[in-house]
Amino acid sequence: MEQEMQVKQFGSSLLRLNRVRIEDPFWSEYIRLVREVVVPYQWEALNDRVPDAEPSHAVRNFKIAAGMEKGEFYGMVFQDSDVAKWLEAVGYLLDQRPDPELERIADSIIDIIDEAQQADGYLNTYFTLKEPEGRWTNLAECHELYCAGHMIEAAVAYAKATGKEKILQVACKLADCIGEAFGPGDDQIHGYDGHQEIELALVKLYRATGNGKYLELSKYFLDERGKAPHFYDEEFKRRGGSTHFPSLRIAKDRAYSQAHLPVRLQKTAEGHAVRVVYMCSGMADVAAETGDAELLQACRDLWSNIVRRRMYVTGAIGSMAQGESFTLDYDLPSDSAYAETCASIGLIFFAHRMLKIEPRSEYADVLERALYNTVIGGMSRDGRHFFYVNPLEVWPEGSAKNKVFEHVKVERQQWFGCACCPPNIARLLASLGSYVYDVKGGTIFAHLYIGGEAVLNVEGEAVTISQHSELPWEGRVRFEIGLERPTTFALALRVPDWSGEPHIFVNGSPVPPEQFASVDGYVYIDRVWLDGDIVHLTLPMEVRRMRGHPLIRETIGKVAIQRGPIVYCAEEADNGPNLHQLVLDPIASDGNGDPDDAGAKFQPDLLGGVLTIALPAYRIDDGGWEQSLYRPGGNVRLEPSTIRFIPYFAWANRGAGEMKVWVSERVNNFPPLERQEI
Amino acid sequence: MEQEMQVKQFGSSLLRLNRVRIEDPFWSEYIRLVREVVVPYQWEALNDRVPDAEPSHAVRNFKIAAGMEKGEFYGMVFQDSDVAKWLEAVGYLLDQRPDPELERIADSIIDIIDEAQQADGYLNTYFTLKEPEGRWTNLAECHELYCAGHMIEAAVAYAKATGKEKILQVACKLADCIGEAFGPGDDQIHGYDGHQEIELALVKLYRATGNGKYLELSKYFLDERGKAPHFYDEEFKRRGGSTHFPSLRIAKDRAYSQAHLPVRLQKTAEGHAVRVVYMCSGMADVAAETGDAELLQACRDLWSNIVRRRMYVTGAIGSMAQGESFTLDYDLPSDSAYAETCASIGLIFFAHRMLKIEPRSEYADVLERALYNTVIGGMSRDGRHFFYVNPLEVWPEGSAKNKVFEHVKVERQQWFGCACCPPNIARLLASLGSYVYDVKGGTIFAHLYIGGEAVLNVEGEAVTISQHSELPWEGRVRFEIGLERPTTFALALRVPDWSGEPHIFVNGSPVPPEQFASVDGYVYIDRVWLDGDIVHLTLPMEVRRMRGHPLIRETIGKVAIQRGPIVYCAEEADNGPNLHQLVLDPIASDGNGDPDDAGAKFQPDLLGGVLTIALPAYRIDDGGWEQSLYRPGGNVRLEPSTIRFIPYFAWANRGAGEMKVWVSERVNNFPPLERQEI
Repeated sequence: MEQEMQVKQFGSSLLRLNRVRIEDPFWSEYIRLVREVVVPYQWEALNDRVPDAEPSHAVRNFKIAAGMEKGEFYGMVFQDSDVAKWLEAVGYLLDQRPDPELERIADSIIDIIDEAQQADGYLNTYFTLKEPEGRWTNLAECHELYCAGHMIEAAVAYAKATGKEKILQVACKLADCIGEAFGPGDDQIHGYDGHQEIELALVKLYRATGNGKYLELSKYFLDERGKAPHFYDEEFKRRGGSTHFPSLRIAKDRAYSQAHLPVRLQKTAEGHAVRVVYMCSGMADVAAETGDAELLQACRDLWSNIVRRRMYVTGAIGSMAQGESFTLDYDLPSDSAYAETCASIGLIFFAHRMLKIEPRSEYADVLERALYNTVIGGMSRDGRHFFYVNPLEVWPEGSAKNKVFEHVKVERQQWFGCACCPPNIARLLASLGSYVYDVKGGTIFAHLYIGGEAVLNVEGEAVTISQHSELPWEGRVRFEIGLERPTTFALALRVPDWSGEPHIFVNGSPVPPEQFASVDGYVYIDRVWLDGDIVHLTLPMEVRRMRGHPLIRETIGKVAIQRGPIVYCAEEADNGPNLHQLVLDPIASDGNGDPDDAGAKFQPDLLGGVLTIALPAYRIDDGGWEQSLYRPGGNVRLEPSTIRFIPYFAWANRGAGEMKVWVSERVNNFPPLERQEI
Repeated sequence: MEQEMQVKQFGSSLLRLNRVRIEDPFWSEYIRLVREVVVPYQWEALNDRVPDAEPSHAVRNFKIAAGMEKGEFYGMVFQDSDVAKWLEAVGYLLDQRPDPELERIADSIIDIIDEAQQADGYLNTYFTLKEPEGRWTNLAECHELYCAGHMIEAAVAYAKATGKEKILQVACKLADCIGEAFGPGDDQIHGYDGHQEIELALVKLYRATGNGKYLELSKYFLDERGKAPHFYDEEFKRRGGSTHFPSLRIAKDRAYSQAHLPVRLQKTAEGHAVRVVYMCSGMADVAAETGDAELLQACRDLWSNIVRRRMYVTGAIGSMAQGESFTLDYDLPSDSAYAETCASIGLIFFAHRMLKIEPRSEYADVLERALYNTVIGGMSRDGRHFFYVNPLEVWPEGSAKNKVFEHVKVERQQWFGCACCPPNIARLLASLGSYVYDVKGGTIFAHLYIGGEAVLNVEGEAVTISQHSELPWEGRVRFEIGLERPTTFALALRVPDWSGEPHIFVNGSPVPPEQFASVDGYVYIDRVWLDGDIVHLTLPMEVRRMRGHPLIRETIGKVAIQRGPIVYCAEEADNGPNLHQLVLDPIASDGNGDPDDAGAKFQPDLLGGVLTIALPAYRIDDGGWEQSLYRPGGNVRLEPSTIRFIPYFAWANRGAGEMKVWVSERVNNFPPLERQEI
């Protein structure tokens, strides 16, 4: 009975959600790739039909658990989540556009998942098939709640898109099973998963069903985390000291799983980067729903630590391979970075949630930085090759020989045994529309400048917005407002951190900046809108030389080139090898960057069409050294040269070669020194 | 019978060896430390009497194998070698000066070793106690011949010093046992050890005994290495696939043990750095004794690759922690370097042997570079704390958090579980006298400028040389020649790579440079010498800014300061934190370095008395950044500053702090650029 009620409630909640359909010269191609290449390819992979690829076995695990096939579990302990992420991406694709064949396939796997679910709601093929007695005994390592979280996210997405409730019922039964096992009661487990994910998923389920116990359970998991006595120690003792990943120290290294402190006391981002941002997303969700000011402040603290101390200029996070982890403030090595695609996706999740709570352009700036650089850099232009690790500098010969760079690939790989990043890219891009706008009271926030059509519910009025955007290459954006009747609302346009003073025209007339409020990086155009109103927004975009904080050792004396949201890199294909020998000439003018813009040029035939930048530089001559490795005195010899930059996201599409985001720059403002002063 | 003959022959060979006693303001203190601190401390450690230290058990292993105590083997498979290295160092100390108490202790352990030796000559407590059936079944991993080699080296050193033959008999029996087991015969093993050492040891035994079969066996081991079919695969199959170090891939990674190619075909230094240079030492020994030109050329090729492509400016080698290994040409990261003390000691062994074959100052230059920088940097000024890893840059907070630097310690450690480096330093410093001179025909080569007295046999004449040296702080050296009668010979004085044009005076009269031959970096003063002749040598020493080859990514745009043989570093103790923010001002003059010399100052009370160097510089200001991590445009702000340098070897004696050898330098010779040329 309770199940039925929940689902009915969910049915009505569907109406509250806004739909955005993307139609954009830059992004539509990515979404087409997801629809036509990534998702179909992944389905083949999940069914072990990709030649030369390691078998996934993920669908078979469900079939065996459902009693439909004979066999044994195979794969990682979190193998189920691959199926869930695929299903979630399918949900978003179906939400954008019907596809009966895709829906038929999805329904078939939903039937199998439904059969694989245990009578009490439990759903996890690893434990069902391999350790039926081990259920809930190794939360630190075994991803049970993580897998459950992904299944819940998939269920919400699929049910929203199709109106079909079967998988949502599975999700509710699973969440109820979890809610019985975990909680403050004496007969319940007082624990939490090693990999955060259930927290944000339960809030989605709460929003979809209106059932407050899911929100409560999410909050419970967050607040249990890091409590003393330590849950990982206790469960370790209870299960007699067995370890799932003996070569790792997951259960002992509490910071790895952000279990070193209660979440409200965590001020710095520690440990596994993906876990941090998934946790923060869940914290922001609960704070948003409960108004928990302390939890919100903890989100702000962690956000601040990440984006002000521990984030790459590409929006990547995770400075080291071991533990795929954060390290310490200002430690941002370019070449040994981990910078996992999934971590930037998680950062986008976190940013998106913070943006909904408090619309400050900083959140969207970071979201955009991660999206246009690391996330799409994680996928090749053919949709079949992926990076997990997104370094800001590579030297292929060095990576091949020096094991410090063992995790770094210099070319995108076909698919990975642990298939986390490709399906994560798929579900993000398939749901990209949901990141473009927010409605808050009588204000429509335009966070991202991505073309398409949105129908938004502004205090009960349906507002249609058609956006045309020339991003990321030019800053020209046009909005057309569709209304049934004149409506008063504010259109809040984000002014990105990369933009100069924006120019805004409403129906052809300039909007003087002083006429409208500009708050937290958004210009609020508050007026009575008429059907057919047109807004033109121009965001001045120029070549910028970005400098890193002087406490970052890696970037001292160097600059990264950025234009609009796009961070650039120099590749061997355009500059020859030994990129470290290139030194950028300083800007001759006052730093406004105008002279640099002369080197910017859109090249339609290069890498699917990208804007490139060429800047005057010097190359350190390596001639005349003969056999010496070190030699005294003398100055280096420099030859006039040019550095040719391409967008970072497009790197490694022309074979293995060197790449460098941060390039040396000649400094020319040394103050006079008195030699005698020593 | 054969044994006796060998020993007799050895007895006479002792007379052929020259003795050098060091009496030097810089080096005597180090040797005193070895005698009074390191060797006694190590004896306590070997006997498990050091409180709070991990037990060594090395002496107990021998006692148990000797049947003198009950118990089980404990320690690494190569634990025996710790005792051997200690005994070798004792031999050198006793060769310098009698010490009855030390000799009594050494004799007592020799008695135990003798008892531990098996009836057939086999000697290895690990296999005797733990795997008696496993003898010679896992050469790739188990260091049996390595341990034997160290025992042989110890035996030769001890017998030479004391004239006592017991341990030499043990060594000969052991070598004979090895010679029966290994060789080309059908009933012999066609193999070689995973860790080279037996090769050079057998040549020492050959030289001590005159028994040519030891030389042959050494050559056999060298030439078997890297042959196909591969011995490691074959023995792996024979023993049923068992592995001693399951977490490592020693037997599979052939280059790790330089078993990827026959040694004569190896052109680049690959794999474990210590093994490479031990192997090269053995190759040079065999080439020297046999006149094998091909083998000598292989030595030259490997030498050249190491010192022209893969060596740090401190004379350290081994660019990565994994495998303690070489990586590739010009890959010389300062912060993640392995740069093991033992590898530099091995490089000294190799250089020393090449120098004896062909006296070229290049060999001595590298020897000196490794000795004055990495080797003595490996030991604290109290003789109780040691570095295994000798990075050229440390950031303590970063090392503590970023696992790329897990192997890097920022303070010297008390003693290590795997006790290779401290006893290696001890045996090197205790035998330092043997590196100072060589006699070749009618020429005495002065390779190193280290004070002391030597009695040298020049074509049958005893020549006494008393050297007084002001190195490493000043380049003034004085030689006094002691002779029984006027004697004609050449005194070949090395002109180090760090020196300007030398000034030479014989008995107060200047020697015009054109008067004497200058060949391969040695000035040959060939004349009839009289008793009491005095030679003054002045090697101009100035502050030099060393640059790395422009293909070294790490050193581009940076300089390392060197004065004489001493490489300098900047430490936090003198410069505050954030050394990466310091930029050296370029030399105002023509690069002769004169202006820099003004900053050099000997400080008798600092770090045991060191010359420091202060140079004008700038510091990049990190103020005004508030909360931003990246920002566009603008120039960096620079404040006049000074960089204060101390000798690299003296770093990390004042607590944990940053250290940097390669510092940024302002480049001021950029050619004019035409912006339009892009």
